[in-house]
This record gives sequence, structure tokens and C-alpha cells, in this order.
Amino acid sequence: MSLVVVGSIGLDSISTPVGSVNDTLGGSAIYASLSASYFTDVRIVGVVGEDFPASALDLLRKHNIALDGLEIVPGKTFRWKGVYHKWNQADTLATELNVFADFSPHIPEGCRNCHSLLLGNIHPDLQLQVLSETKSYTHVACDTMNYWISRCPDKLAEVIKQVHIVFMNEDEIRDFTKKDNIYDAARIVLSMGPALVVVKRGEYGSVAIMQDDMFFIPAYPLAQVKDPTGAGDSFAGAFMAIIENFATLDLDSVKSGLIYGTIMAANNVGEFGVQGLIGINPSMIEQMKVDLIRWTR
Amino acid sequence: MSLVVVGSIGLDSISTPVGSVNDTLGGSAIYASLSASYFTDVRIVGVVGEDFPASALDLLRKHNIALDGLEIVPGKTFRWKGVYHKWNQADTLATELNVFADFSPHIPEGCRNCHSLLLGNIHPDLQLQVLSETKSYTHVACDTMNYWISRCPDKLAEVIKQVHIVFMNEDEIRDFTKKDNIYDAARIVLSMGPALVVVKRGEYGSVAIMQDDMFFIPAYPLAQVKDPTGAGDSFAGAFMAIIENFATLDLDSVKSGLIYGTIMAANNVGEFGVQGLIGINPSMIEQMKVDLIRWTR
Repeated sequence: MSLVVVGSIGLDSISTPVGSVNDTLGGSAIYASLSASYFTDVRIVGVVGEDFPASALDLLRKHNIALDGLEIVPGKTFRWKGVYHKWNQADTLATELNVFADFSPHIPEGCRNCHSLLLGNIHPDLQLQVLSETKSYTHVACDTMNYWISRCPDKLAEVIKQVHIVFMNEDEIRDFTKKDNIYDAARIVLSMGPALVVVKRGEYGSVAIMQDDMFFIPAYPLAQVKDPTGAGDSFAGAFMAIIENFATLDLDSVKSGLIYGTIMAANNVGEFGVQGLIGINPSMIEQMKVDLIRWTR
Repeated sequence: MSLVVVGSIGLDSISTPVGSVNDTLGGSAIYASLSASYFTDVRIVGVVGEDFPASALDLLRKHNIALDGLEIVPGKTFRWKGVYHKWNQADTLATELNVFADFSPHIPEGCRNCHSLLLGNIHPDLQLQVLSETKSYTHVACDTMNYWISRCPDKLAEVIKQVHIVFMNEDEIRDFTKKDNIYDAARIVLSMGPALVVVKRGEYGSVAIMQDDMFFIPAYPLAQVKDPTGAGDSFAGAFMAIIENFATLDLDSVKSGLIYGTIMAANNVGEFGVQGLIGINPSMIEQMKVDLIRWTR
């Protein structure tokens, strides 16, 4: 059993109200994989250029993330530069696709019998290509972003029809469904096929919505947010890693996934880049779980 | 045992994105009293003019709300006219203080042995006057609004030092404490004396913060919000009515108060004016509690 994570891998330059970092390891697949690595075996699928730092590869190996799906090709690694004037929204200053422009993701042979798949935020065409190779997975999820919702909603709808779990934030699900009420919006997405929609609400936590049930969880309270980049990816990575241990997607597995997703998103945003996802003591994660349960039940 | 509710009583004209009403019964004391009336004996303290409708008095009596603290004086009843362009903020179009301009609230003789007091949103000077008459109460709470925070923060601070429970929304507690992080902000308020701060977060629910503990609750999901007026008052009224049944303010009593506060706020905003607080079947309240517990625990 292992979780396959497909998504972007890049070097980010990020500025937030409390600091900045340059060319730091990032991308949806990186955040999700590092977060998931605390709970299950992870296989990352993505592409980087020859300039990708050896230290980043070492970091992934140290987290037992299998790299057979990671292509290293001639050229430069994807780069993104963004600034957060407000905490809940990044303004993109520059995007260099570089080797990511020709990315054609493939599930490595060793992953044909994997259990779960997380399609991180990439072009829906690439998500569809991966889906065509992974028919037998137990839990398949997709994340996305407003960029694809506005540019290729029909392709994204094709993806959604083929997955079990959809992660969207409030703005995204409203834009995608043209419904202002998130419960109405979620019902539209569920009617397309998925069994579960997780609506992410930033500092207010998230709500998981199923056909006949739902579950709310607040964000883990933090003294200081430093960098929101990758919060949704960290959340989705941990969520998918946890539900890997469950045969079915029911209220119990969803609750457990939400708790750990919430914890890892909090760990992530408390530091710049992926720093918050590195070297976390498992006992700290368990203490955060005890806290969350005490504060909500 | 009974809950004393002090606050404004008026006739509101309200316009929201889905409709409007004119000269409908409103005011912080009305919303809080009607909400609380489902859970305990309520005594309302306020002032109205001779034009106050007999039907409104009948409604209060029907809810077993004691009227010995309600003054009916010559002149016109307080009136407020507001419009919600967005759901979370009313723009005031007109305020006629009328008889409310000379309001001097007093606790009736019969309430000297009451148990709990809710100081609804009125001038902090009036809240202080009531506090001077109610030294022996077990649970004393205050609500407020941005208007008083910006105009008389020192007076409001005097009120806060004398109460056990403070209700504020996120913007209010940030403005009052000059702290952006609501947990830091709540700690400042707690350091002034209260044992509990309840931070209201609108559609995202609320969080109760005590010295060594906290508790989160989401808003009850609704198909349609019609009129947010009085949401905070309904919440506070039900919360205070519930904790009246507890000798101490601990995590258990706070949880119970938050659940019923959340339910009554949802009932209120689902209809215009106070319509959502009238004729609620107790079994519906209990079903909403079952729902909330299922969706959060």
C-alpha cells in the first residue's frame, strides 16, 4: 500500500507580511508528499530540471518518499514567485514553467497496485492522463485552483466525474458551481460522482460534505502564520495518507483524515516554505490531535 | 432563578439581498429574550414608547418573558433602518433614538435575586449603571458593538472588568485590543477580568476562549439566510439561558451554551426580524443539537 502524489514540483520565491524566502522547495506534489510521509509510504510523480538541488532529493529520500516517478530532465525546474498582501490570497508575480511545460505524468510500473492517488493542482488534462492509468485505486482525489476553473471548467468536470474525493476552497467551489451557498455547491459536485467534497475555509478550518453526512473541523489555532503556501496541499496529503488505512470512505475515516489534514496544514503555515513539514516529532502530532479533540468534542 | 436581559427594544426596517420588512419588532433585548425564553425564565429590561404595538407585548408575554422591567413612556419607540449589501455587515440608513435617548435602566425589585444577567449592546454607561445594581449575580455577560469600541473604549473596558463573559465578533475584538490574532486578542480581554470570551465568527461559527481552554463550534448549516439582524443577540440569549442551569462556568457548561446559542442564531437568521424565534418546536431544537453533535464529534 502506498499513496501516489502527482503534482507540480518547483522552486518558489515567496513574500508574506512577516518575511520572505527565495528559490525554496515547493509545488503541490512536494507539500502533499512531505505532509503525507508522516503517515504512509508515498510515491511522488512529477518533473524537475537538472538544476533541482541535490539537497531537495535528499530531503525527499529522508522522508521515505519513493522517487521512481520523479523525472529529472534537461532544462530548468519550474519556478513561481508570489506575494501575500493578505494571508488568504497570493498574487503571482512571475511563473516560469520551464521543464513543467512539457510534463507528461505517468504512474511508474511499481505503482500499478497502489491504493490511493492524490492529483495535486495541475492542468486537468494531465490529471485525466494519470486517471487513465489508475483505474483500480481505492481512493482517488483531486485538488485544483481558480486558474483551471475559469480556463477549462469542462475538463475539470471530466476529472471530477472520475474521482472519489474533491478538495476545493470556498471561492473555488462557488466559482465552479455558480452557487453561493457552499452546501448547495457541494451537492452539485457530489451529483457529478464523487463521494466526498472537502471545502477548505482557510483560517476557519474545513467541512467535509458527503451525500448523507458532513463533518466540520476548525483550523488548529496558531500564534503566528508565516507562509500560507501549500496549506491546501499539506492538508490533502495528510488526509489521503490517513484514509489509505481505511477500506471505505465513511464518517470515521473522513473524521480521522480531517484531523490530521488540519494538523499538518497548521504545521506547514507556521513556517516558510516546507520548513514546517520537516522533522516533526510524531508525539507533537499526537498532542495536536489531543488538543483538537478537546477543543471540538 | 431567571435571566435578566438589558438592551435596546425597537422597531426595525431591514432590507437584505432576499427581501425587506418595515417597522418590525427588534432590538438587542428582544432578540436575546425571545431566544432565551426557550430555556429559562426571562426578565426584560428596556424602554419603549406609547406607539409600541400591543401585539409585541402579547408576543413577549406568550414567551413568558416578565415585563416588570419594561418601561412604557410617553413618546415614540426607538427605530432603526438598515440594509445588508453583504450578509455580514449592516449599513445603517437611519436611527431614531426617540424614548431610548433618555433610557436609564434599572433592575426591578423582583430581580435582586436573579442568577444571570445579559447586558445587550447599549451604551457602556448604561451597562455600568446596571452592573452597579447587580453585584451578586452568578453569571454576568456583556455584548457590545464597534460603535462603542471606537467612541468610548475606556468605558467599555470598565464594563469588561466587571463581567464574567464577553461576547464580541472578530472585528470587534481586533479593534478593541489592536491585535490581529484573535487568540492574542482574547487573552488581552481575559487579562482584564472575564473568565470567558466568546468570539463570534458569523457563518463560520464561534470560539469560546478561557484561560486554559477553548472550544470551537461551526455555524449550523442553513439552506438560506434571510436576515442576519439579531444573530449575535439570539446567540448570547440562548447561551446565557443555558449556563443559568450551571453553578460554574466550565468547559461543559460552555459547550452546552455554545450549542444552543448556535442553534438559536441559525433559527433567527433563517427568517426576517424575530419570526425565526417564534413558535419553535422544542423537538426541532433537540434535533438540531443531535445534528450539530454528529457533524462535529
